[in-house]
Amino acid sequence: MLSQGYRTGQIQGFRLLLSNSVEHLLFQSDIRSALEKEGWLITHDPLFIKVEELDFFIDLAGEKILAAEKDGFKIAVEIKSFIGASDLASFYIALGQFLSYRSALRKKQPNRILYLAINQDVYNNFFSNRFIQELIAEHQLKLLIFDAIQQGIILWKE
Amino acid sequence: MLSQGYRTGQIQGFRLLLSNSVEHLLFQSDIRSALEKEGWLITHDPLFIKVEELDFFIDLAGEKILAAEKDGFKIAVEIKSFIGASDLASFYIALGQFLSYRSALRKKQPNRILYLAINQDVYNNFFSNRFIQELIAEHQLKLLIFDAIQQGIILWKE
Repeated sequence: MLSQGYRTGQIQGFRLLLSNSVEHLLFQSDIRSALEKEGWLITHDPLFIKVEELDFFIDLAGEKILAAEKDGFKIAVEIKSFIGASDLASFYIALGQFLSYRSALRKKQPNRILYLAINQDVYNNFFSNRFIQELIAEHQLKLLIFDAIQQGIILWKE
Repeated sequence: MLSQGYRTGQIQGFRLLLSNSVEHLLFQSDIRSALEKEGWLITHDPLFIKVEELDFFIDLAGEKILAAEKDGFKIAVEIKSFIGASDLASFYIALGQFLSYRSALRKKQPNRILYLAINQDVYNNFFSNRFIQELIAEHQLKLLIFDAIQQGIILWKE
């Protein structure tokens, strides 16, 4: 959305507004690139998990080999652009997905840590709300904050 | 949806398919009537709560005066028809809303108990899944199961 100041372009003086779904795909691609820039190997795009006949598709999964570790550190990332619906409506979906995915991962891939990736503008404008902060703490959501200017991840919030 | 066998009509031999949003409104009205039939006084339709500048609208709120009680027993009901989107997509929203509303109620109306109202078909076909049952237990969702044939609530599941 324009108010978030995220990806707009100029064509012959006219502002190019990208559709919501294109914006969302571009945000996904930005997160993937940002993770790769930090040395993550993207292993799944998306990560598919089946639990009790239910199919879960988590946006990304990656791995990083750290010194003195035999196995890599593994993450899964659910990406939410918060474009289109209201912030609260987007948050309901993000919360429900995160908790479902986390429980699914605990069953199938207990060593993989789940993060919710959001834009810095969304973090500053919506997630800073005290009640949203309390919900995040209550349900122990881990966040990954992306900055559109630097095109990089500026915060891993445990 | 047709596969749920829920509310269809016949007009001059043609099946009348109601749109998803109309179906959803009818389901809301069914739940309200069923609660009233059980002696609940519907006090809010919807119930509005404001927490930290965020506006929450919970579908229904009601009260029942029981013997030997000074104050009535108070409930709030989030109604989910599971019509339109996939069951999992509907579940993500229901879970995210339920947990947000419950936390909001704890702050503003701690004596009001929140329930998620669903159709019996949805309960039998989707909520019976073992993983969904585990998620419901993990997050302590309280359910209210509606039967379209009897037009009544057949189960309060704590």
